[in-house]
Amino acid sequence: MHILITGAAGMIGRKLTERLIREGGLNNKPISKLTLADIVTPPAPSGFAGEVDLWTCDLSSPDEARKIVSGAPNVIFHLAAVVSGEAEADFDKGYRINLDGTRGLLEALRQSGGGERTKFIFTSSVAVFGAPFPPTIEDEFHLTPLTSYGTQKAIGELLLADYTRRGLIDGVGIRLPTICVRPGKPNKAASGFFSSIIREPLIGEEAVLPVPETVRHTHASPRSAVGFLVHAASLTREALGPRVNLTMPGVSCTVGEQIDALRRTAGERVAARIRREPDQTITQIVGGWPMRLGGQRAQALGFRAETTFEEILRAHIEDELAGRIAA
Amino acid sequence: MHILITGAAGMIGRKLTERLIREGGLNNKPISKLTLADIVTPPAPSGFAGEVDLWTCDLSSPDEARKIVSGAPNVIFHLAAVVSGEAEADFDKGYRINLDGTRGLLEALRQSGGGERTKFIFTSSVAVFGAPFPPTIEDEFHLTPLTSYGTQKAIGELLLADYTRRGLIDGVGIRLPTICVRPGKPNKAASGFFSSIIREPLIGEEAVLPVPETVRHTHASPRSAVGFLVHAASLTREALGPRVNLTMPGVSCTVGEQIDALRRTAGERVAARIRREPDQTITQIVGGWPMRLGGQRAQALGFRAETTFEEILRAHIEDELAGRIAA
Repeated sequence: MHILITGAAGMIGRKLTERLIREGGLNNKPISKLTLADIVTPPAPSGFAGEVDLWTCDLSSPDEARKIVSGAPNVIFHLAAVVSGEAEADFDKGYRINLDGTRGLLEALRQSGGGERTKFIFTSSVAVFGAPFPPTIEDEFHLTPLTSYGTQKAIGELLLADYTRRGLIDGVGIRLPTICVRPGKPNKAASGFFSSIIREPLIGEEAVLPVPETVRHTHASPRSAVGFLVHAASLTREALGPRVNLTMPGVSCTVGEQIDALRRTAGERVAARIRREPDQTITQIVGGWPMRLGGQRAQALGFRAETTFEEILRAHIEDELAGRIAA
Repeated sequence: MHILITGAAGMIGRKLTERLIREGGLNNKPISKLTLADIVTPPAPSGFAGEVDLWTCDLSSPDEARKIVSGAPNVIFHLAAVVSGEAEADFDKGYRINLDGTRGLLEALRQSGGGERTKFIFTSSVAVFGAPFPPTIEDEFHLTPLTSYGTQKAIGELLLADYTRRGLIDGVGIRLPTICVRPGKPNKAASGFFSSIIREPLIGEEAVLPVPETVRHTHASPRSAVGFLVHAASLTREALGPRVNLTMPGVSCTVGEQIDALRRTAGERVAARIRREPDQTITQIVGGWPMRLGGQRAQALGFRAETTFEEILRAHIEDELAGRIAA
């Protein structure tokens, strides 16, 4: 089996690559070849006996898209995207990478004639939803994104469904909730605090909480995100039906519940490293985000996330900290 | 005021042009110029004292789109589209005209810098919805089109909302229900019978009914469709808010109720010209279409359709038959 991952140099791309190599197969078939593509050269994976192709390319170029699918991958994980903040700041770049890039890849596949034999897993986002929201966003809630990023993802979903309906690919779209705890350094994303209030205290550093503890949000761990991708690749067309885009499950909890979980797992001294510094702007931005995602259909189709924030926390401690906490 | 109509040679385009000329103004401002564009040359309108520009062009060409907006229209009615059957039969043409054409026009407007001063009315369709449906499709029901045409319209809606949100245009998207009674000759569209069972008997001809009388559907007259367009042009950004795409109201009735209305209005002899000839294929296609559209938001914003099928029937007799029925 030949697997192509776009956006392979990103956090999820690297973790997905590691898992695929660790398991050695996908859908009970051995992996013979990995094509890893990104705008920066993806790291060469270790421990993989098969063929590896590393691509540095801009997928929004139709030529590059054609070249990359010419190796006839059986499964494509399309993770490449310009993130929310950048797509908002740079209108042209966002549409070029997120819309034209996705469409170009789908077109290249249509022209290559792989048809339903090519599994295409598209990572969408809960940014396809836009306030005002009901208390829980159910599977039939409409998509009215309030960012260009969300718009581009929603368009990608529509294209994915139409190309699949016409038998040009075998597509699955998965709307990821906020990934938490995101490893690495703090960043300037408005959502950054959801991860940093956990990640920094656990390594002995201070974190800033800019919103009230009552703020509610839905999270899944990086481990779950990778699990969603792998599970998506196993779904049959019959099981999925024509509605190929699915809201993933996650843990809906308040910031206060996140902190309680941290306190219970790592102790009061760790939890005390969170400094409250209310920020009106961030509070307002976060207020426009979904609080609770139903994800009923995805769960019925076998997608599994953590069920408590403590599980998310333990996944982080195991996967990123080798079990060590800076008490 | 300068008004641009794309798809001006089509049925709705011609009726809209006639109404604008009859009223002489839009939003209480006199119309000084009409630009009428279509892939075939639109008919030169009569009775208009202002400037008229007739364009024969393919709007999916970025050059043509730039040229057509260079005259800085204040209001654009974007009706041009490849219809459902053709978009399904010709994948490339459907995406080129319905997606690239709409996006090209929006891009041309963005580059021309007209911004929120340019009102852009986009005609979408209830084809953005896909079965299975709840008994009534409410305003927050998701878009899962089951045709390429519906996909292209749904993408147009998303682009419209994002360009509007960013202040690049002042957009309104209106999802038209089935237009009935459609004037002209019978055509091969699966939905054709909704109109022909009324239109043909009224001029003394036989019509074929291929579905059971229990089939329920939502209709609006051509007169109402034109009314929706004119009303959409009057909406303020404040009244509309970020959700710029609206499901239009219409009359939800069964085929049996349509026939009852015909019988009451035109008599038993006219209604007897409908021949039942069940067609399994058409019955199945129609079974995948929305039965009842809520349209609550549109109604709250002042959009008005007929409230009974008899009104739709009378509008047809007045507008197309000059009041005469072939009894």
